[in-house]
Amino acid sequence: MTTRNRQIRLAARPTGFPQDSDFELVESQLRAPGEGELLVQAHYLSVDPYMRGRMNDAASYAEPVGIGDVMIGESVGKVLLSNNEKFPEGTYVAGMFGWQEYAISDGKGIRRIDPELAPITKYLHLLGMPGWTAYFGLFDACGLKEGDEVLVSGAAGAVGSIVGQLAKIKGCRVAGIAGSDEKIAYLKDQLGYDAAFNYKTTDNLGQSIREVCPNGVDVYFDNVGGPITDAVMWALNIGARVGICGQISQYNLEKGELGPRPFWHLIVKRATVRGFLVFDYFSRFREATADLAKWYQSGQLKCEERITNGLEHAPLAFVEMMQGANTGKQLVRIHSDA
Amino acid sequence: MTTRNRQIRLAARPTGFPQDSDFELVESQLRAPGEGELLVQAHYLSVDPYMRGRMNDAASYAEPVGIGDVMIGESVGKVLLSNNEKFPEGTYVAGMFGWQEYAISDGKGIRRIDPELAPITKYLHLLGMPGWTAYFGLFDACGLKEGDEVLVSGAAGAVGSIVGQLAKIKGCRVAGIAGSDEKIAYLKDQLGYDAAFNYKTTDNLGQSIREVCPNGVDVYFDNVGGPITDAVMWALNIGARVGICGQISQYNLEKGELGPRPFWHLIVKRATVRGFLVFDYFSRFREATADLAKWYQSGQLKCEERITNGLEHAPLAFVEMMQGANTGKQLVRIHSDA
Repeated sequence: MTTRNRQIRLAARPTGFPQDSDFELVESQLRAPGEGELLVQAHYLSVDPYMRGRMNDAASYAEPVGIGDVMIGESVGKVLLSNNEKFPEGTYVAGMFGWQEYAISDGKGIRRIDPELAPITKYLHLLGMPGWTAYFGLFDACGLKEGDEVLVSGAAGAVGSIVGQLAKIKGCRVAGIAGSDEKIAYLKDQLGYDAAFNYKTTDNLGQSIREVCPNGVDVYFDNVGGPITDAVMWALNIGARVGICGQISQYNLEKGELGPRPFWHLIVKRATVRGFLVFDYFSRFREATADLAKWYQSGQLKCEERITNGLEHAPLAFVEMMQGANTGKQLVRIHSDA
Repeated sequence: MTTRNRQIRLAARPTGFPQDSDFELVESQLRAPGEGELLVQAHYLSVDPYMRGRMNDAASYAEPVGIGDVMIGESVGKVLLSNNEKFPEGTYVAGMFGWQEYAISDGKGIRRIDPELAPITKYLHLLGMPGWTAYFGLFDACGLKEGDEVLVSGAAGAVGSIVGQLAKIKGCRVAGIAGSDEKIAYLKDQLGYDAAFNYKTTDNLGQSIREVCPNGVDVYFDNVGGPITDAVMWALNIGARVGICGQISQYNLEKGELGPRPFWHLIVKRATVRGFLVFDYFSRFREATADLAKWYQSGQLKCEERITNGLEHAPLAFVEMMQGANTGKQLVRIHSDA
């Protein structure tokens, strides 16, 4: 067995979009798993917008990654050695193993995944955090009701592409906003979105929103914030519910951006805006996974994957994802079974 | 009986704070009440922030007042003549009678008030719209729970002064923000607020908020918006609820003001912001009035009044109220029983 473990560590706190020099690729020594521990070989790493916040040294909902620490992140992989009977050798697991080839785990906070039920990458989106985020954000934070007119920003991303499909499953009309014509076609042709537009090629966001939501917006699932969300405020219906999942347009700004104040709209429309974090629903992940797996197996829920090869390209994959290169879920392939 | 009726009509759409020239005092002819109608002599007129929006020709939750129309507004008064058995001569009523000395009503949308239970002016605040606004805003929109740390902006105004007292009745700690040292003393000495500060004399809103809310903010009842509300976002606790009642700092701006984007805070704090309108609770006004009257009679609920004499000074009273001259409820005396 190898004793070398390649890791990507945070080398500096990024300003704006992260650069190569903000990370370092380190080859560290791998120890054997101790009592109750297991050794995981990571096959796929998930890169997600929330990681940008962890690179900052600022108060947020979680501690920042320290300089010199392995970047945090979830991956799926195979148990190579195990002293933990819950996770025998040869089984597959998902967990916060970080940006590295191998990880030692005591088994806490990780979960066993079933490669017979779905390819293991699915546990990083449809049957994992993006899926749970879409599920609880839409059903709980936004209080989705049958017949709602739903609008999703960042609609072709890992979370957004699931949100739209869930809303369709629940009998709603769904419109999406995304950043390329390819994504718009994907939303409409592959995911069943009723309407969608490319925010990069419209010169009037408000008008484009009215065109894709001619009956106004009852539920707005927001992944992006910024000018898109400003424009959506005008299109809310009375009693609208806005779920704030992410604000990706804001994460790489060097200085907080000013925008039109949104709260007056909330009075006029008796609307509710709710920020949520998927971790708060931890005790209900099993329930969500059961539903998501059912819809995945019936073909009602799908998601493209954009896979970048090689751990060393994880920083690039992360930045490209933040810039919207991915349609569907951005992943990094570290090892494969082949 | 007089046949002259002095009225204040909207003469022009104000830019910024309304000016004298935006109104005209007109003496019109008064007709006799017809079948089913009654003639009301207005004793007190309420001037409220919402009226500023009605002076604009812009889409909102209600139609604008037309140029040349009598300004809308609620008043309390005495029935002088009646062809409506629900409101006999000599009884007192409250209703949207407008900025005028006399009004003819068909009895729809008005309510009979009891001068034995409370002075008639109380039906324009504690036992009327500001009271209902505080009641439903705090208990429903903000979902107040016992033990919540409550912060109120515009705390010495008609609604704010009631909000704080309701929160105290429900066993919460309450802090307030207002715009004069006199108001701060009033909040702490008369209304039972636990802490309060004058936003006009602090040079650090964030620090002042932390001082009056050392345990953070679970419920923020917002009457003002703007920089005060921006600063409160940083002080929200996890699971905080923000009720947007008014945004008085914004109503007289000639151009919409930009501010820091607030939605990221909502994710970090898993917070909810809800805009509400008191009219949506119409079917429950009776329930609220019963509670408010009970607390008024037990001495747990009070409110100062600032009374300006004479209908002709209603525009001035309105502008002074928008500028914060009033501690408690601003009223205009039109007639009195004496």
